[in-house]
Amino acid sequence: MHGLYPGSFDPVTNGHTDIITRAAKLCDTLTVLVSFNPDKAASFSPEERLDLLNKVTADLPNVKCDMWGGLLIDYFDKVQADVVIKGLRAVSDFEHEFQQAHVNKELCAGAETIFLCSDISSTFLSSGVVKQVASFGGDISSFVPAIVLPEIVSRLRKP
Amino acid sequence: MHGLYPGSFDPVTNGHTDIITRAAKLCDTLTVLVSFNPDKAASFSPEERLDLLNKVTADLPNVKCDMWGGLLIDYFDKVQADVVIKGLRAVSDFEHEFQQAHVNKELCAGAETIFLCSDISSTFLSSGVVKQVASFGGDISSFVPAIVLPEIVSRLRKP
Amino acid sequence: MHGLYPGSFDPVTNGHTDIITRAAKLCDTLTVLVSFNPDKAASFSPEERLDLLNKVTADLPNVKCDMWGGLLIDYFDKVQADVVIKGLRAVSDFEHEFQQAHVNKELCAGAETIFLCSDISSTFLSSGVVKQVASFGGDISSFVPAIVLPEIVSRLRKP
Amino acid sequence: MHGLYPGSFDPVTNGHTDIITRAAKLCDTLTVLVSFNPDKAASFSPEERLDLLNKVTADLPNVKCDMWGGLLIDYFDKVQADVVIKGLRAVSDFEHEFQQAHVNKELCAGAETIFLCSDISSTFLSSGVVKQVASFGGDISSFVPAIVLPEIVSRLRKP
Amino acid sequence: MHGLYPGSFDPVTNGHTDIITRAAKLCDTLTVLVSFNPDKAASFSPEERLDLLNKVTADLPNVKCDMWGGLLIDYFDKVQADVVIKGLRAVSDFEHEFQQAHVNKELCAGAETIFLCSDISSTFLSSGVVKQVASFGGDISSFVPAIVLPEIVSRLRKP
Amino acid sequence: MHGLYPGSFDPVTNGHTDIITRAAKLCDTLTVLVSFNPDKAASFSPEERLDLLNKVTADLPNVKCDMWGGLLIDYFDKVQADVVIKGLRAVSDFEHEFQQAHVNKELCAGAETIFLCSDISSTFLSSGVVKQVASFGGDISSFVPAIVLPEIVSRLRKP
Repeated sequence: MHGLYPGSFDPVTNGHTDIITRAAKLCDTLTVLVSFNPDKAASFSPEERLDLLNKVTADLPNVKCDMWGGLLIDYFDKVQADVVIKGLRAVSDFEHEFQQAHVNKELCAGAETIFLCSDISSTFLSSGVVKQVASFGGDISSFVPAIVLPEIVSRLRKP
Repeated sequence: MHGLYPGSFDPVTNGHTDIITRAAKLCDTLTVLVSFNPDKAASFSPEERLDLLNKVTADLPNVKCDMWGGLLIDYFDKVQADVVIKGLRAVSDFEHEFQQAHVNKELCAGAETIFLCSDISSTFLSSGVVKQVASFGGDISSFVPAIVLPEIVSRLRKP
Repeated sequence: MHGLYPGSFDPVTNGHTDIITRAAKLCDTLTVLVSFNPDKAASFSPEERLDLLNKVTADLPNVKCDMWGGLLIDYFDKVQADVVIKGLRAVSDFEHEFQQAHVNKELCAGAETIFLCSDISSTFLSSGVVKQVASFGGDISSFVPAIVLPEIVSRLRKP
Repeated sequence: MHGLYPGSFDPVTNGHTDIITRAAKLCDTLTVLVSFNPDKAASFSPEERLDLLNKVTADLPNVKCDMWGGLLIDYFDKVQADVVIKGLRAVSDFEHEFQQAHVNKELCAGAETIFLCSDISSTFLSSGVVKQVASFGGDISSFVPAIVLPEIVSRLRKP
Repeated sequence: MHGLYPGSFDPVTNGHTDIITRAAKLCDTLTVLVSFNPDKAASFSPEERLDLLNKVTADLPNVKCDMWGGLLIDYFDKVQADVVIKGLRAVSDFEHEFQQAHVNKELCAGAETIFLCSDISSTFLSSGVVKQVASFGGDISSFVPAIVLPEIVSRLRKP
Repeated sequence: MHGLYPGSFDPVTNGHTDIITRAAKLCDTLTVLVSFNPDKAASFSPEERLDLLNKVTADLPNVKCDMWGGLLIDYFDKVQADVVIKGLRAVSDFEHEFQQAHVNKELCAGAETIFLCSDISSTFLSSGVVKQVASFGGDISSFVPAIVLPEIVSRLRKP
């Protein structure tokens, strides 16, 4: 099974790495995809986000990372993935992700989405929280992977 | 009964036309109202949105379309409508729409709102989804009325 | 428009009478229907519930009350109603009522359901709350219509 | 991947068969498990429910059905499954299923649960709806698989 | 501040003891109240539940436990408490608890309720989960306080 | 108990003053804190918002107001508060506020958050509603405290 785990990863958090680790066990191949919209502002460039993901997943042999600025379903077709994988934390996630899953199915009948529930300790964690805390100089060391902590801190800390 | 169906319709989707068709059966007169905020960015101008709605509702004799840049309740009073009509798709709609309904009632005691639940096939559909898919060149033909598809596609497709 | 407002009304509360009063303004005829399941335990018999509703709606000339132990949609067909009317208080109501509305539409394509949002002061009110408070001898005078308060109190108070 | 799809299936609906068909494509082996609690009342006996599932899945070569009256996680261990599979329809499903998934993980660290979202046309469908409609003699032919329709109807229709 | 923490505690879980410990820090006196309905079936008798709570809170000097089979607000008045304290885990808790809080305020204008959010590790935990797992002989040692584990296990394990 | 009630208060509404009044009864000292993000656009400056709060709370002797552009938890430490206090209106509030409460606890183990449920009449009220209505010249006199109504109206009304 070739799984595709898309997200904005702006930046990657421990919540994302939890999903990546667990999804990698279910899949023969897992592609983690930085899905970006060229028209939307983000804190990290797609290249920076991909670079962080590459570092974080370096030890997972069946995981590769990529970036894509188009329709998810086109990438899904291109790499002939079998399933889209998403994490769910809360009710608001649920509604948004189900909408996306149904849109993807409408656009491509074979595009199945499977959901993993977030680890209990990550239910409150999001890229937005990381940026909010870091922008005020707060300690984000329990929110992001240690290997990329310095990079994320230095990019998000205000001058 | 004179019903008033307000929305941003930026642009109209099959979810909107489902509500319009069903609401038109319940009302003697149905006014579909492009409600716009001059200070907020939108993809289509109010005039464009009204034009799309006029085309889409051309075959419904008791439906007329209009646009309004002020307080909904002032338009409601002006045309002496009996009810505001809204569609509900999901829990997040529910909370937002109930807030608006209660605000309208606070501002005008006689302003009753009635809700129709979205057709099953439209629960995942929104103007935002249409714009997201179209901006990447995806196929939106199952999301918007055929009669306005070319206009919407040409306006949303990137250069 | 002939509206059908079904419920278990076990017993009627001020939340129900709020919906009845507002729905009666929207409809030419409103039928308030005690919908009961002969196999389910209830605190009041269908006849008692109907009797309470008749007293509560005596002053509303276009409202009549009835009871029905079968499929809602069969009654809907029998009286040739135009719409089912339901009140919504909270997210949990929303999910249940939407399920019912979609089931009814599946069983009878013409069966439209419209929803009114509960009055702000009734959002916490239900027949279950009335019974819970009354069973402990609490004061339910602000929860049920004054005209049926003595009957409800005497039936629910423990011996 | 060996998937385990547990449920009460009291009785099986088209919503269940949708999940079974899609899950069977993701798994090498899929076990559909009638999970019953000997102390809880049900409309169909575990044996009847299993029999219906066997008929419904007869054409799916990698699907087998079983029943279990103990802790799910013990069955999961016994058959050395890789994942539990569940369908999600609505917000209320979401909360209940996440609770169960976390409990299972607490009891057995390796027990991963993956969720599929219900097909759009099954979001309103449940075993409870089937029983409610059938008990009043309503038409359930669009709710349950044709092959088991007569059995379900004859069991649920009142004398 | 005299806080009143009511619940059915059938039986006490680690989720309850987390709320008790934190509430005890906020209050001068905290009363933990087994609130029971003589007409509703429960797994443990009110006396057994109170006994378990007494053992669990023995080390908390400003906490005392009691039981009550009447209206919460009558006990609140009787002991002249200042606030009702409740834990919130999930959206479904939220709706139920807010309803209760508004009912209590309607019955007694001075009855304020404050909510604590469950500890992350207890969001999936409830008395129902404990009973479900224990009834199948599952390990509940991470769900209930160690001091009362043997009692709870022996009462819930099937013969 | 020293309570800290943070918010953006852009501008203060009757929903905020309801929470302030009730929280002031529970606390020895209550600090109402304008929490602002220097990078985010707001309708009122932090100084203006603080000024409005000072006027609104002038009669409450144990309430003082302040403003803070940093991490909430740093202010909490600085003034040695005992609890953060937040109001909850709806499900969407609930998820956001619980996320914040868990983040604060992660950053500072002693930071307890308590929640009060909004007064029934304020459940639909927010700063956003006030601004939306006022921007169209609507009447906001039932939404904001009378003492600051003229200031808020003159600031929000369009030229």
